[in-house]
Amino acid sequence: MTEAHVNIYDRLEQLGIELPNASAPAAAYVMSAQSGNTVYLSGHIAKRDGKVWAGKLGASLDTEEGKAAARAIAIDLIATLHNHLGDLNRVTRIVKLMSLVNSTSEFTEQHLVTNGASELVAEVFGERGKHARSAFGVAQIPLGACVEIEMIAEVK
Amino acid sequence: MTEAHVNIYDRLEQLGIELPNASAPAAAYVMSAQSGNTVYLSGHIAKRDGKVWAGKLGASLDTEEGKAAARAIAIDLIATLHNHLGDLNRVTRIVKLMSLVNSTSEFTEQHLVTNGASELVAEVFGERGKHARSAFGVAQIPLGACVEIEMIAEVK
Amino acid sequence: MTEAHVNIYDRLEQLGIELPNASAPAAAYVMSAQSGNTVYLSGHIAKRDGKVWAGKLGASLDTEEGKAAARAIAIDLIATLHNHLGDLNRVTRIVKLMSLVNSTSEFTEQHLVTNGASELVAEVFGERGKHARSAFGVAQIPLGACVEIEMIAEVK
Repeated sequence: MTEAHVNIYDRLEQLGIELPNASAPAAAYVMSAQSGNTVYLSGHIAKRDGKVWAGKLGASLDTEEGKAAARAIAIDLIATLHNHLGDLNRVTRIVKLMSLVNSTSEFTEQHLVTNGASELVAEVFGERGKHARSAFGVAQIPLGACVEIEMIAEVK
Repeated sequence: MTEAHVNIYDRLEQLGIELPNASAPAAAYVMSAQSGNTVYLSGHIAKRDGKVWAGKLGASLDTEEGKAAARAIAIDLIATLHNHLGDLNRVTRIVKLMSLVNSTSEFTEQHLVTNGASELVAEVFGERGKHARSAFGVAQIPLGACVEIEMIAEVK
Repeated sequence: MTEAHVNIYDRLEQLGIELPNASAPAAAYVMSAQSGNTVYLSGHIAKRDGKVWAGKLGASLDTEEGKAAARAIAIDLIATLHNHLGDLNRVTRIVKLMSLVNSTSEFTEQHLVTNGASELVAEVFGERGKHARSAFGVAQIPLGACVEIEMIAEVK
């Protein structure tokens, strides 16, 4: 069986990942919007045990904690994508991530934090997970979350 | 008449919104660029009475003022889209907003500020206005503006 | 010979620009990802003499230095695009730039810094270089780089 035919749900199970319920749609916007075969996912903020994972890198959180938060967001993004598509095997490419890290003016490891998400995407989607990305430090994030990530995916 | 056939200019008039002249194109870039049926609008900074609406959330401006600024930007974005398309009824979907809120390191209500833009888009475009979005706090914005928003729209 | 038929490599030579080797692909992500005829380039951080060009606008660097850094990034982005496409003449449009400027809470000339990239793109690609853009100030950038820019290009 070639890599391109791996069932994404089998991969998730092998990785021991259980998808959470997708975030409830907010009033004035939606968690995902599709145009042609491109799906844009809204920025997802970090959560732990269903609550906002608050904190600032370089102050209240270290790089490893930030990386764990980024990994958790990637799982939430995949859950939203599953909710949008009905079947994650319709994903032909994770095209891009944009990762916003709640940072002090001195913290410079946003790329290491963001690897938590990039590595999870690579583990789940394999060749289809090879994405471009931007990662940088922001002054704050809604509700004080430590990381926020948005995703663009190509689907069939 | 179904929602999909509402004339956007009638909607704007019902809402009492008069579109301003679109921002003048800058030297080295343009306010909108189209690829296929996707229109990318440049980041628009907040203006009031034609001048830069300066300030920082969490310091010189409160959430309600920021929300009003975000609403004003959404109107400017729609004006640029009108200028680009000639006819706003060609918009099939507002796909995504990215909202940058000039924030102190402590201000955490970027989502409420951004609702000013999201709600205006929903009022004007209805079902066609259901967009994904990201909102976060940035260290500064050109000319000290309090909010900057960019938009992606799908058109026919 | 019409503008649309100018050979991009001739243009680069006229401008005295030699493309560097494209950045090495990182482990968990790639420097460019294509979906249909859209190429998304990862955020590229500023480099000088092959090393990270570190600094913060409003503190250790002034606007002119930031503008030079943005110009250098634009050249690196074009190098990555060349590496991705094999032939830069396949570019039909530089669609969008997003420019993140490592800024103090007071620095407000992110647009002037970013002009360093926008003007270079215009010089190299002419009409095909007319792009939308967003520019704003961020709290920090990976490895302390002074500017980071991502690009979206339409190709044939």
